[in-house]
Amino acid sequence: MNKNGNGKLYGVGVGPGDPELISLKAARLISAADIVAYPAPEGGESFARSIAKAHISTACVEIEMPVPMKTERFPAQTVYDAGAKDIAEHLRAGRDVVVLCEGDPFFYGSFMYLHDRLHDEFEIEIVSGVSSLVACAGRLAQPLAGRNDVLTILPGPMESDELERRLAMGGSFVIIKVGRHMPRIRAILEKHGLLANAGYVERATLPTEKVMRLADVDDSCVPYFSMILIYDGGEAWKK
Amino acid sequence: MNKNGNGKLYGVGVGPGDPELISLKAARLISAADIVAYPAPEGGESFARSIAKAHISTACVEIEMPVPMKTERFPAQTVYDAGAKDIAEHLRAGRDVVVLCEGDPFFYGSFMYLHDRLHDEFEIEIVSGVSSLVACAGRLAQPLAGRNDVLTILPGPMESDELERRLAMGGSFVIIKVGRHMPRIRAILEKHGLLANAGYVERATLPTEKVMRLADVDDSCVPYFSMILIYDGGEAWKK
Repeated sequence: MNKNGNGKLYGVGVGPGDPELISLKAARLISAADIVAYPAPEGGESFARSIAKAHISTACVEIEMPVPMKTERFPAQTVYDAGAKDIAEHLRAGRDVVVLCEGDPFFYGSFMYLHDRLHDEFEIEIVSGVSSLVACAGRLAQPLAGRNDVLTILPGPMESDELERRLAMGGSFVIIKVGRHMPRIRAILEKHGLLANAGYVERATLPTEKVMRLADVDDSCVPYFSMILIYDGGEAWKK
Repeated sequence: MNKNGNGKLYGVGVGPGDPELISLKAARLISAADIVAYPAPEGGESFARSIAKAHISTACVEIEMPVPMKTERFPAQTVYDAGAKDIAEHLRAGRDVVVLCEGDPFFYGSFMYLHDRLHDEFEIEIVSGVSSLVACAGRLAQPLAGRNDVLTILPGPMESDELERRLAMGGSFVIIKVGRHMPRIRAILEKHGLLANAGYVERATLPTEKVMRLADVDDSCVPYFSMILIYDGGEAWKK
């Protein structure tokens, strides 16, 4: 509880998937939490909760935010309105709330939707997590960026002409949220001569992980949780 | 030990500074390690070691790589030659070696110099860490990137015309390794109308941390461990 009597909101990164990549601080806060909230695909299991479940107390109140899966580009804002309302009630009653966030809370995560709705009224602390971006680089066994390299992060759903304009600038790239955009992205990378430099990782650090050269990927089954890493002037995969 | 009798090399990210942002896996590997290696400024304390010290066993053999501080752009490769040689001797004798890395091992870190020298002969596992980039965003209390935002990471020492060319592309930016380049970078951001959107963080998550609008920074004392975050169309700091 903080000085105005409200509870504190924690946005806690739980890392890319391996439950052992949770930080000591995240594990401590989750273990001590009376209220835990997380997004979940409508009708499915929450990925963030599955990563953190060993630390969630059985006495804990859980707030699930069921996110419709069809709205990849425009997440159902009504879900976050309702989630923020539930969370705010606990905070106003002086109870702290821990929100579980895949990867890092402020790096292309859905926590921003709760942050937007709650930061004017409540104290929020971010507990940074291992982002899936660095986890993918680790699994590809090649440094993502070093020295004075420029690294650009490009979301897969972006328009093709903008994607091409960015690639033409040079440097290293990570393309996130690949999913169904894979055939289009692959064609663009091929056109720019970048296919040989591109590695692919899906579900990094999980038992179902796949790590391969982009050239070897089957376009027909690329999940949302996948990334393409393009190494400036290098090979996709040294090992 | 792995199947050819050699030890295994672990590149372990220890996060941005707060010892509690070490992952459970990193803590486990460091605690169990017989050999730990890390870079240190010549004549000074190793930052990576200071983050991880609670987990280092007193019986542990420690390999310090003393990096000269004057070579910001071109790290003393002889130091990594010597470090890699020492590490290789332990690995060939069947002993695992844990290398402590500030932030994440493959994200603008010095572990790449050891990786380059050792990955042909030895098995290397990367244990990804919380990068200082996401930690800075967390401390600035504003989402760094979301939805279909483009995020570009720019090293401070890069040439001014290239920096301007990148900034003109739009999106969100992080400028790393700011240090003595601050006056030049600030002038460029001002010219491009980006000063109001820029936040500044030094020594994120440490007791000596500073978090402020870039406009308020004193250029005369900006350390190497500092970053500028530029929010696409937003303010530097909402709270």
